[in-house]
Amino acid sequence: MTRRIVVKEKVLKENDRIAAEIRQQLSDRGILALNLVSSPGSGKTSLLERTFQDMKGHLKMAVVAGDVQTENDARRLEAAGATLVRPIVTGGACHLDARMVQNALTGLDLGACEVLFIENVGNLVCPSSYDLGEDMKVVLLSTTEGDDKPLKYPAMFRRASVMVVNKTDLLGHSDFDLERVRKHARQINGQLEIFEVSCRMGEGLRAWYDWLNAAAKAKHDKRV
Amino acid sequence: MTRRIVVKEKVLKENDRIAAEIRQQLSDRGILALNLVSSPGSGKTSLLERTFQDMKGHLKMAVVAGDVQTENDARRLEAAGATLVRPIVTGGACHLDARMVQNALTGLDLGACEVLFIENVGNLVCPSSYDLGEDMKVVLLSTTEGDDKPLKYPAMFRRASVMVVNKTDLLGHSDFDLERVRKHARQINGQLEIFEVSCRMGEGLRAWYDWLNAAAKAKHDKRV
Repeated sequence: MTRRIVVKEKVLKENDRIAAEIRQQLSDRGILALNLVSSPGSGKTSLLERTFQDMKGHLKMAVVAGDVQTENDARRLEAAGATLVRPIVTGGACHLDARMVQNALTGLDLGACEVLFIENVGNLVCPSSYDLGEDMKVVLLSTTEGDDKPLKYPAMFRRASVMVVNKTDLLGHSDFDLERVRKHARQINGQLEIFEVSCRMGEGLRAWYDWLNAAAKAKHDKRV
Repeated sequence: MTRRIVVKEKVLKENDRIAAEIRQQLSDRGILALNLVSSPGSGKTSLLERTFQDMKGHLKMAVVAGDVQTENDARRLEAAGATLVRPIVTGGACHLDARMVQNALTGLDLGACEVLFIENVGNLVCPSSYDLGEDMKVVLLSTTEGDDKPLKYPAMFRRASVMVVNKTDLLGHSDFDLERVRKHARQINGQLEIFEVSCRMGEGLRAWYDWLNAAAKAKHDKRV
């Protein structure tokens, strides 16, 4: 067991070294990097599809889209009009690591890019341990998953800066309670910025776009 | 990397040894053991709540309920009338392992027990690698998660014997298509037994109960 922990620490140290390189590279260019994490099926790709459709012409965005298998997410994003997209197929690994992201970035022209989205593997546990060089983690949670998830998977919600509650159009079809999820989330992380949206119906997205614009501008201004 | 793999193999070998002990112990008593796996929020606990309520008096069931944090699931099951319940809090680990299950079982009186449910951590990736001494893995998938999940998380669907599609009451609220999910699942695993249920509305559960009864009887008869 001790040996296992030592090896894991070594792997994480190497990961942190590469993550720092990515962070430096993106900061030099003033690019905001967001690491999107959630359970499978919470709507990471749906949120990105909407964001690409609605913010086209306003923000120059790129995405690296991770999945255990298939390039489905990257294909969906291209269909939504995203041009700077790179898939990462982890081939079994339960999370993205910084090396995978660094390799994917070499294939992307980040020229005038303002925001880089890193869509992680659908998993509320393991991705919380891996720094990918992002500025912030954005955790998604859908109303069909239960409002106790922040308590049951605290590491992810503690390390995130933003929580997006998706599928608000399905409120009332389960016992999910918005007040309760806000309370549970803030109990774990009092600093969380919270948005409530329905990607399917296009509701509540204005506040997310405003925040995104402001965060991208702040990152860009910091470079200058 | 090589060293990491070697250590992982050693850990898995030790896990398999304990899993074999559990399997022997349960088989000696003719107890059917099912390892329930899914994303967070697919409805593992809801399926068990329903099953305990509806099969009380017909089947003697026990459950060990794993979570990263909180004993919420075990509490919910006790409220549903389950008496043989043991929580496992993994404290950060992304999956149950055989040692955790073995420890939990020492606290359970399996006397006249016919079925043992092992409710795994909500995670479609990591739990697929850990044998817990079960007879079969039962993978849950809810209609709100997207019908391409069997393709994106193939290891889990390949290693499962049963797939339960939950939240059929929400069909029509997303692009989820039952025909498509069946096709994708069978593409990965042609042997999958498939049930379609709504735990919330109590629909489609009869077929699941019939299967459960038959599987428990088969396991019991094998012992005799």
